[in-house]
Amino acid sequence: MQLVTIEDIEAASERIRDAAVRTPLIPASWADPDRPLWIKPENLQPIGAFKIRGAFNAIGNLDEADRARGVVAYSSGNHAQAVAYAAATFGIPAHIVMPEETPNVKVQATRDHGARVVLCAKGQREKVAAEILEQTGAVMIPPFDHPDVIAGQGTIGLEIADDLPDVDTVLVPVSGGGLASGIGTAIKARCPKAKVFGVEPELAADTTEGLLRGERADWSIEDRNRTIADGLRSQPSALTFAHLQKVVDAMITVSENEIRAAVRELAVRAHLVAEPSGAVAMAAYRQGTTPQGRTVMILSGGNVERSALADILAH
Amino acid sequence: MQLVTIEDIEAASERIRDAAVRTPLIPASWADPDRPLWIKPENLQPIGAFKIRGAFNAIGNLDEADRARGVVAYSSGNHAQAVAYAAATFGIPAHIVMPEETPNVKVQATRDHGARVVLCAKGQREKVAAEILEQTGAVMIPPFDHPDVIAGQGTIGLEIADDLPDVDTVLVPVSGGGLASGIGTAIKARCPKAKVFGVEPELAADTTEGLLRGERADWSIEDRNRTIADGLRSQPSALTFAHLQKVVDAMITVSENEIRAAVRELAVRAHLVAEPSGAVAMAAYRQGTTPQGRTVMILSGGNVERSALADILAH
Repeated sequence: MQLVTIEDIEAASERIRDAAVRTPLIPASWADPDRPLWIKPENLQPIGAFKIRGAFNAIGNLDEADRARGVVAYSSGNHAQAVAYAAATFGIPAHIVMPEETPNVKVQATRDHGARVVLCAKGQREKVAAEILEQTGAVMIPPFDHPDVIAGQGTIGLEIADDLPDVDTVLVPVSGGGLASGIGTAIKARCPKAKVFGVEPELAADTTEGLLRGERADWSIEDRNRTIADGLRSQPSALTFAHLQKVVDAMITVSENEIRAAVRELAVRAHLVAEPSGAVAMAAYRQGTTPQGRTVMILSGGNVERSALADILAH
Repeated sequence: MQLVTIEDIEAASERIRDAAVRTPLIPASWADPDRPLWIKPENLQPIGAFKIRGAFNAIGNLDEADRARGVVAYSSGNHAQAVAYAAATFGIPAHIVMPEETPNVKVQATRDHGARVVLCAKGQREKVAAEILEQTGAVMIPPFDHPDVIAGQGTIGLEIADDLPDVDTVLVPVSGGGLASGIGTAIKARCPKAKVFGVEPELAADTTEGLLRGERADWSIEDRNRTIADGLRSQPSALTFAHLQKVVDAMITVSENEIRAAVRELAVRAHLVAEPSGAVAMAAYRQGTTPQGRTVMILSGGNVERSALADILAH
């Protein structure tokens, strides 16, 4: 299986230069002095999450003729917004397939980016997407299972290596694994002494189990749906799992209460709004068991409903 | 009266380079397309507010022998933290005079930076500070009434001019006026076509009244204390007022409800935690009356109690 290379990530970095925010590393001055901490605030990207990087790179790397026919994605989350936003920037059509039960606010946000939203019944999304692909000749942009998406997310690792070349530890959320695959590849190439830790909710720890076993573990979607971290309910593909096996040194799991406490700490101390999925690396840091040395945590996204955020902050 | 120059601000920029975060301009992709908006997130500074810039510049510009004797400040807010933090970085003593009624959490936060906190009764702060100055030979670092503090805050304007040279409108909170004096001076020198608007709460609009009258207006502290924006209850000094007269094109006042709504919008759409004082420029933008063109708003700080933030978000 061909893995993404540092050259792919460097090319992605050029491609997304004008589209993604070049997020700074924010020093967490209150952190453990033995493990000085910097936050990579990907919640400050235009759609509030790192997903913009992979979407822009994948769409930007299409032949112009292919790209003009438009793109398709299925997602009810940040990937939907990212593809819709990137397509609008390129001035091409975007067809976003969403489950019927998607909250209206997310449907509307996707339409606000100019995308066509196609609602579909449970279990029908592949069929509906296939029909759109055939009718329109558009190209599917997957949320993580694609080299260009992985390379796009990897630009975060490149930026960390540029800004803090002597980083010792990088903490990255893991769901489908595109983010950790890309960042891990960049960090291992540029900062070979640094350790890369993946972080999962205890309630959706399929990758932790899979990496220990040496093959992908399959948790039921009912199990994975238990976590409040709704962006971390996917599982790696063969492609991302192969990357994770190569570039992730170890996994850390965090409890639901630890995730909520991390959202609170990021809001009150770092003044950054994280969605629960975006706060798991902070939760891992707070366990106090990561190695001494310069640590970077990825705050992967900030899209949380106002009432849910208020509720987490009030408790 | 001698005003701060662009050269003073450029020198400050060199002086604070390693201390302050070089905050990026965050594009607000959801904003009015006729008035594209960028946020300057000074809540991401180490102590959660822009005050770090002025404190570092003022302390950094002292003679080494003077600096070694330490610094004094009186403040119960962000200036206290900023002076304590900067003094710790320089490895010199900091004596922070705070009112007896200061919430313990703020006293502790100041002590956590290694500062000596001296609590004092109402109306005694000048006397207590004078005693410390005499006993220790330390230097007073005022919150806004000093050219080096103004020049330090002005580095924000320099960064805006570097990142967005064709900016049309800059929205800046006004309290003692150091921030607006510095930013306005930098913007007028570097982007002479840009307009600079000061923003105040309606309930503490002494500067709005003063600039209209052409002389400082004095509002009672009881009046000014009514606003939720507790960082905007000071009034300009003769020095800052002279700057404001020269570099501020107009003032905008915002209501308490508009301030709360702006805190909500910054949290939910920009994923940034603003204290009420830090959100007034967003509130001004949301009124929809600022000119068309590229607009930058200063998010000046993010230090808000968790329960207060939860309450604002819940309503």
